[in-house]
Amino acid sequence: MDWESFYDTHPSPSNYESTITTVENFVCSHENKKMVLITSGGTTVPIEQNTVRFVDNFSLGTRGSASAEYFLEAGYIVIFLYRSNSLEPFVRHFNNSLLDKLEIVDDKLIQVKQSELDTLFPILKKYKDAKNDNRILTVPFTTLIEYMWLLRGSCMLMDTKYSLLYLAAAVSDFYIPPNEMAEHKVQSRDGPPVIALRLVPKVLYAVTHIWAPNAYIISFKLETDSGILEQKAKGALIKYKHQLVIGNLLHTRKHNVKLIAQNGVIEDILLTETDIKKGIEIEDLIVSNVKAKHDQFFESQN
Amino acid sequence: MDWESFYDTHPSPSNYESTITTVENFVCSHENKKMVLITSGGTTVPIEQNTVRFVDNFSLGTRGSASAEYFLEAGYIVIFLYRSNSLEPFVRHFNNSLLDKLEIVDDKLIQVKQSELDTLFPILKKYKDAKNDNRILTVPFTTLIEYMWLLRGSCMLMDTKYSLLYLAAAVSDFYIPPNEMAEHKVQSRDGPPVIALRLVPKVLYAVTHIWAPNAYIISFKLETDSGILEQKAKGALIKYKHQLVIGNLLHTRKHNVKLIAQNGVIEDILLTETDIKKGIEIEDLIVSNVKAKHDQFFESQN
Repeated sequence: MDWESFYDTHPSPSNYESTITTVENFVCSHENKKMVLITSGGTTVPIEQNTVRFVDNFSLGTRGSASAEYFLEAGYIVIFLYRSNSLEPFVRHFNNSLLDKLEIVDDKLIQVKQSELDTLFPILKKYKDAKNDNRILTVPFTTLIEYMWLLRGSCMLMDTKYSLLYLAAAVSDFYIPPNEMAEHKVQSRDGPPVIALRLVPKVLYAVTHIWAPNAYIISFKLETDSGILEQKAKGALIKYKHQLVIGNLLHTRKHNVKLIAQNGVIEDILLTETDIKKGIEIEDLIVSNVKAKHDQFFESQN
Repeated sequence: MDWESFYDTHPSPSNYESTITTVENFVCSHENKKMVLITSGGTTVPIEQNTVRFVDNFSLGTRGSASAEYFLEAGYIVIFLYRSNSLEPFVRHFNNSLLDKLEIVDDKLIQVKQSELDTLFPILKKYKDAKNDNRILTVPFTTLIEYMWLLRGSCMLMDTKYSLLYLAAAVSDFYIPPNEMAEHKVQSRDGPPVIALRLVPKVLYAVTHIWAPNAYIISFKLETDSGILEQKAKGALIKYKHQLVIGNLLHTRKHNVKLIAQNGVIEDILLTETDIKKGIEIEDLIVSNVKAKHDQFFESQN
């Protein structure tokens, strides 16, 4: 199995044991409740061992961070496995021009401006409620290796029908083996480097067959070429035998996704102009749809 | 000149004209005042034309964003040319666990918690003052091409002895020419791609000789191998004839930098354990030192 040799040759990151213990404690404190693992953001693949340069995947983490909010609203317990510095649920609404949303009051206090309160108050309220009830755990990663270890560890802790795995992270397909990495920063005087990449093993097979075969599993496909999206999604469902692929194209992903199910049924989720003007996010519709599918799956397992 | 052909083959980004007009208006509104251009954060080099993957440089933007605060304190007008989503002056102090720094008061207001006020109040005050006085302009970039155009445009607007160019961004040494880029996302079924990179032309020569020969110019060198740092810094000073290189090593850059001057003098700036415990940032010391050097340079040009 090529993923086994991948884990054999890439030892766990230094903080892995303590992080996965935190995840374990969180999972144990919510037994027999619907729980979702959301992966979000891109992974990095270092080019040098002392890392200055790396290959990255494009992902702000919008899909994952927005979905986390709607899953909490739908009653799920949420584990949010995300790329450091990518968007986080709730926090994402505060990020833009943060300091311009704040004002100094009476020369001694800092408040969110009145004009921002209508939007930000309910968001902060939901965040505080979720934190106080311990309903969300956020776990950061940066490199592909960190992601691979945390994914395996988390999936193995969530192998029940209560679990939904919502694998939205943009994971690198490629990596550079440690023994082929330069130790120091590659010097430009040596001429431009040629970076030879290797294929990352498809761990989705291990997720669906070994680590969490009892969970409801959703993978994501992002393409730029509409001609190959459905065919690639169907190919993945045949190969990995999981429940659902959510397919999207880079340039329309904010208002259009396709849900491709194991039985071949394809549903289109489309935001209308009116939806967009109202500020409705497509993740709201995705999560409603996915929750219904997980409910049905859950019942069928009884 | 290889940088000329680089600009010829990479047309300006779509929003370039309006951005550089904003910079021009800002510069014109501060005639005959000391002004610093700070570049900060890493650049991306897309691997595909419809960009999903890119090669990135490691940089949170700590050096640039912290320095911007100290330059404002030292009386400079600041243009902060920074990578989108990298650290920004003042904002950086609010980023970590932002929502945990906020509390809901009387079920209708959002305030910064009392326990955070001692730290955050003076920072927000300085931010608001700088904004109200129009003393800072922030200009974001993402790709190498955006950076290259904005750097050239800004430097050409700042070709006076009042200007200090503080080029702290981690700019890629390599790029992939547009005609060699894949149009769509590289497919993994075709096997791992081999990425052939080209050398980015050294525009520092153009900065010092053509775009801003009258400014005081500082470049930065980040290495992982201490054995080559000084030699590379001196090489750059001979080649580009600018005033100062600030050299640092990846693993000690938060508490040790070397200032290597055109005349060969090397100064070490070192934070002591006591400094670190007091919360002193090395950028505070760097900016004081650099300001004195720019003052002296300024006087010598009269």
